[in-house]
Amino acid sequence: MAPTPVTDRGFGPARHAELALLLEVAGTPKPGNVDRRHDLPDLHFEHFLTGAVGSAEGLSLAESGAPVGTAFETAVAGMSRQGGGNTQFGCLLLLVPLVEAAAAGELSPNGAADVAEATTIDDAVNFYRAFEHVDVAVGDAPDAAADLDVRRGGDAEPALRDRGYTLYDVMELSADRDANAREWTGGFARTFRAADAIRADDGPVTDRVARAFLDLLAEEPDTLVVTTHGESVARDVMARAADASTLAEAGELAADFVADGINPGTTADIVCAATFVALERGVPL
Amino acid sequence: MAPTPVTDRGFGPARHAELALLLEVAGTPKPGNVDRRHDLPDLHFEHFLTGAVGSAEGLSLAESGAPVGTAFETAVAGMSRQGGGNTQFGCLLLLVPLVEAAAAGELSPNGAADVAEATTIDDAVNFYRAFEHVDVAVGDAPDAAADLDVRRGGDAEPALRDRGYTLYDVMELSADRDANAREWTGGFARTFRAADAIRADDGPVTDRVARAFLDLLAEEPDTLVVTTHGESVARDVMARAADASTLAEAGELAADFVADGINPGTTADIVCAATFVALERGVPL
Repeated sequence: MAPTPVTDRGFGPARHAELALLLEVAGTPKPGNVDRRHDLPDLHFEHFLTGAVGSAEGLSLAESGAPVGTAFETAVAGMSRQGGGNTQFGCLLLLVPLVEAAAAGELSPNGAADVAEATTIDDAVNFYRAFEHVDVAVGDAPDAAADLDVRRGGDAEPALRDRGYTLYDVMELSADRDANAREWTGGFARTFRAADAIRADDGPVTDRVARAFLDLLAEEPDTLVVTTHGESVARDVMARAADASTLAEAGELAADFVADGINPGTTADIVCAATFVALERGVPL
Repeated sequence: MAPTPVTDRGFGPARHAELALLLEVAGTPKPGNVDRRHDLPDLHFEHFLTGAVGSAEGLSLAESGAPVGTAFETAVAGMSRQGGGNTQFGCLLLLVPLVEAAAAGELSPNGAADVAEATTIDDAVNFYRAFEHVDVAVGDAPDAAADLDVRRGGDAEPALRDRGYTLYDVMELSADRDANAREWTGGFARTFRAADAIRADDGPVTDRVARAFLDLLAEEPDTLVVTTHGESVARDVMARAADASTLAEAGELAADFVADGINPGTTADIVCAATFVALERGVPL
């Protein structure tokens, strides 16, 4: 006899966040991304498992109320101790404020927005430092903000302090072109909506994750695809995701996207954050 | 450019043990077991991911030197908070003393034997209590030891105290018919040997894990297969594992074993423990 699925695991937010990292990468097919059934040439499933375990210390700091920037940089440093490179930078950027909101008993769009808006200049500095641990694909900074290019890492500290930019301000700077920054400045709207979809869906959590990914991918251009392949390819990816109405059709897309080097990583970040919210609010597993 | 694999992750023993739980279940094909590419009807990959994260608190207790029985019972309780049932009871039974040995700087056959031999009656009681958290497939206890049947859970406490049995003594009682108990009473011999094989092997860790599994399966009858299908089926499984000389051939075996309900879970436990030792001693990832 099969045991009954468990909805309340008694996990704290940090453990749920770690589990969300694992369930996100286990969800298959997520076309173009590493998942349980797909590796990329230099980025493998086991790198994500290792990245998730390595993130745990930083996630635990977030649960205990450490500053967002400190928790995030610690999580990224731990995540980076594997040979795949950037596995979950974007996931962690969304998870850390959500874990802080959950630990404060305020896991809601307003609660998450409060955490984001309360960030400081020090949080911004630690966010920049996190880029020193791992190579993250980002677009060029606007000319007016060249001294705030994230690729400068901790060297951007004087510019941040001169301008008095908090981490929230930094996110506002790129919210027009970065879907994760838009989550930060918009009360994590897509995250919470996708979490509701995951909870309302049926079947194994990993299938729910895959369907949520497909829906999000059809909804907006993926930021990482825009960065690496341009806006028109990202629009084409959206249209093709919209045409895939089943996980089987998504599986065919997966083969095409991997062949074309199309990796919708930002959409995976949002699915990961949504999985966290769904776990916190209750999803049987 | 692919980043360089990382051999020293700066993880403590508890995190390496959690990662070993994840890499073990990711290793594919492991014929008859759940792995990255195989589910069983009521036992899915995501149950193992959840079990691994749930085990972390108990593993962390082991790292901090808590009594073996306390750390084990806590790990099993956390592991059990998912709907698949028993995912990693046997893995944890091997991992907990190995984590304690590693935390003491003595991760060797002698160091692990010292931890096992130093266990107390309280450790035995907590081991029995762990059976209350999850349904574990075990053989019948000998008539002479009916009051020590593990299925009695904490009710066996008076019998344990009357006889003055430590957890090591309990393992000695079943060492002739249980491969995990034999690891406990024999300096974890197969675990350390398989760890050497994993480290000496080439390629992704998950492939190394799968090859180590196949070698161990060919070497001795799997205890869980003996318990559920009898000795002669277990001998047949050994012979068929010995005939599979590649992972592709092991993949064909996987389909056959799943169809026949053959689940060599004890061999997976030893591979998990070996993966932990390999991670501690250094394996690139």
